[in-house]
Amino acid sequence: MSVEHELYVELGERRYPIFIGPDLIGGAELIRPYLAGSQALVVTNETVAPLYLERVRQALSNVHVCDVALPDGEIHKTLASFSKIIDALVEGRHDRNTTVVALGGGVVGDIAGFAAASYLRGVRFIQMPTTLLAQVDSSVGGKTAVNHPTGKNLIGAFYQPACVIADTTVLATLPPRELTAGIAEVIKHGVIYDAEFFGWLEHHVDDVLHLEGNAIGYAIRRSCEIKAKVVAADERESGLREILNFGHTFAHALEQATGYSRWLHGEAVSLGMVMAADLSMREKLLGDAEAQRIKQLLKRTGLPVVVPPDLEPDALLEAMSHDKKVKAGTIRFVVVDRIGNVRTTAACSQTSLAQTLRAGDALCER
Amino acid sequence: MSVEHELYVELGERRYPIFIGPDLIGGAELIRPYLAGSQALVVTNETVAPLYLERVRQALSNVHVCDVALPDGEIHKTLASFSKIIDALVEGRHDRNTTVVALGGGVVGDIAGFAAASYLRGVRFIQMPTTLLAQVDSSVGGKTAVNHPTGKNLIGAFYQPACVIADTTVLATLPPRELTAGIAEVIKHGVIYDAEFFGWLEHHVDDVLHLEGNAIGYAIRRSCEIKAKVVAADERESGLREILNFGHTFAHALEQATGYSRWLHGEAVSLGMVMAADLSMREKLLGDAEAQRIKQLLKRTGLPVVVPPDLEPDALLEAMSHDKKVKAGTIRFVVVDRIGNVRTTAACSQTSLAQTLRAGDALCER
Repeated sequence: MSVEHELYVELGERRYPIFIGPDLIGGAELIRPYLAGSQALVVTNETVAPLYLERVRQALSNVHVCDVALPDGEIHKTLASFSKIIDALVEGRHDRNTTVVALGGGVVGDIAGFAAASYLRGVRFIQMPTTLLAQVDSSVGGKTAVNHPTGKNLIGAFYQPACVIADTTVLATLPPRELTAGIAEVIKHGVIYDAEFFGWLEHHVDDVLHLEGNAIGYAIRRSCEIKAKVVAADERESGLREILNFGHTFAHALEQATGYSRWLHGEAVSLGMVMAADLSMREKLLGDAEAQRIKQLLKRTGLPVVVPPDLEPDALLEAMSHDKKVKAGTIRFVVVDRIGNVRTTAACSQTSLAQTLRAGDALCER
Repeated sequence: MSVEHELYVELGERRYPIFIGPDLIGGAELIRPYLAGSQALVVTNETVAPLYLERVRQALSNVHVCDVALPDGEIHKTLASFSKIIDALVEGRHDRNTTVVALGGGVVGDIAGFAAASYLRGVRFIQMPTTLLAQVDSSVGGKTAVNHPTGKNLIGAFYQPACVIADTTVLATLPPRELTAGIAEVIKHGVIYDAEFFGWLEHHVDDVLHLEGNAIGYAIRRSCEIKAKVVAADERESGLREILNFGHTFAHALEQATGYSRWLHGEAVSLGMVMAADLSMREKLLGDAEAQRIKQLLKRTGLPVVVPPDLEPDALLEAMSHDKKVKAGTIRFVVVDRIGNVRTTAACSQTSLAQTLRAGDALCER
């Protein structure tokens, strides 16, 4: 066990650490100070459980541990899964001093976090993200939620964990497609906040994908730092935090229009970011060359950058109208002025939007 | 419309007013400043809707209003009802600037509040309590929840309203049994915090039950003041706020053991308070005469003060073990030292507790 990086999300009395390094999930001394009492519930999924549940149970050997393994996948991010966790807490007679530990990807973290926020009106919560996407994005910042049949993350809470334990060793068992999906959010953090980091990724993204020790650790660390800074400045998304949704208005629509089954979230975000860059370019905010750089970096990793021809623009528009970021009926987009600098606007023209939705494989090109 | 009393729950940036007086629910100018935007969803129940929904809709005539009427009763305080509200918000395409208005008793307020806390991770919330119990207790303080099949209020959030509008005129259409049930929580506030108010009630409880203008207004106001003070000192129930649960450990067990169907919540609280006073007396904390005063005041109003013989002590004990206030397996009770002064303890003897559970009609008597 070796904590290589330790950083903090600065939220006053709810300040909490993110630990990054190899072989962390079995570390009893790492997690112990963050437990609320003598009970814990580990929430995981059927894919992760056989790999890592036992190791986490051992790290928690000094407390009474229950566990619940949800079926794997975004389609199970529902109120029904939320209820399963609540049932496990009730059946295990967990009291207010229990701790809910989320061991898994973003779906597990989001559902478990909402259950921790709601059980007895809030119990202790710890994130142990096991996918790259969860480590660099969803485990940090306190957004928890489940999906509604008509839209993603419509039911949830802002609820911060007591700590985040990001074990880089577990990434070795990730399917390559899941690893690549996580890179999308890493690249996003470069685009929205840090041109230098984007440039570093252009040089080192292959090292990151090969889990080369220093590269993967730094990519996770820098992503978490950027996210932590944005979250600390705007915990409840009244302004700045919206920039983290770069690419997500399109991504959510893509996922919804395809029943959450065609892409992993990170893959949808990749395509969503190319669409957002394309829209920014058409609106003459972003230069053609920079739009191309965004598309090319994503494409090199193997992430999708083409709108499939079977996706009707009207279906995507309809899906976008349910987005949480719709204000008074107007769709708001995060647009790029230059790499490292984005902002939210409701002023994109219908013409540009229609062109983006129809662009197919010609996104960001002209 | 006449705001006779206006007081504030002092919670820093979440400070909010409670308005008390006749004919308030139709007051457009009263509610308008507290709406977040141009949409609202009124949550009510099938009993209240025909009486008052139209009047509230008129008060909201300047915004786009949807409504949802839940079936009436504690047995509908479920995740299913919560989902119904979320569905109505989604179907009505409510965005982050919507306002959820709870028009009804404690059940409506608790479910609607949890839905407002969870929809898009939190939208504006206004309480319009229409029962005495909701006006003097559940609408104030930000506790929202739904029940789990095995226990009350196990799933919820702390979520404060933007304002509480307590219309005393609507109490005239309350069934007498509901009005009386509300008195239980009024009396509770005297027992836990204010001996003088308890004495005032001994003299004026009949005026309150007859909805005599000054008496009912003052009883609501003083109850809200006491609750607001306790909540402001301890919003998330880490200490002082537990005193508001006086009688409730027993009451929740009574309700659960009888499937939430035999008593109204206030009725169960009445019996629970007599049991808690009895336990305090057996533990030699409370004098016999004061225990008798508590029982007598409740009895005079027609509230239940006798443990029915069909309720097995073991069933009640089992139900109590699921209570949220259980810490590390020990049941905690709010006990009375004297009228106006209570505290939480985990030190009650099993013998005293067993005697209280078996006391039947001899509670507080020896």
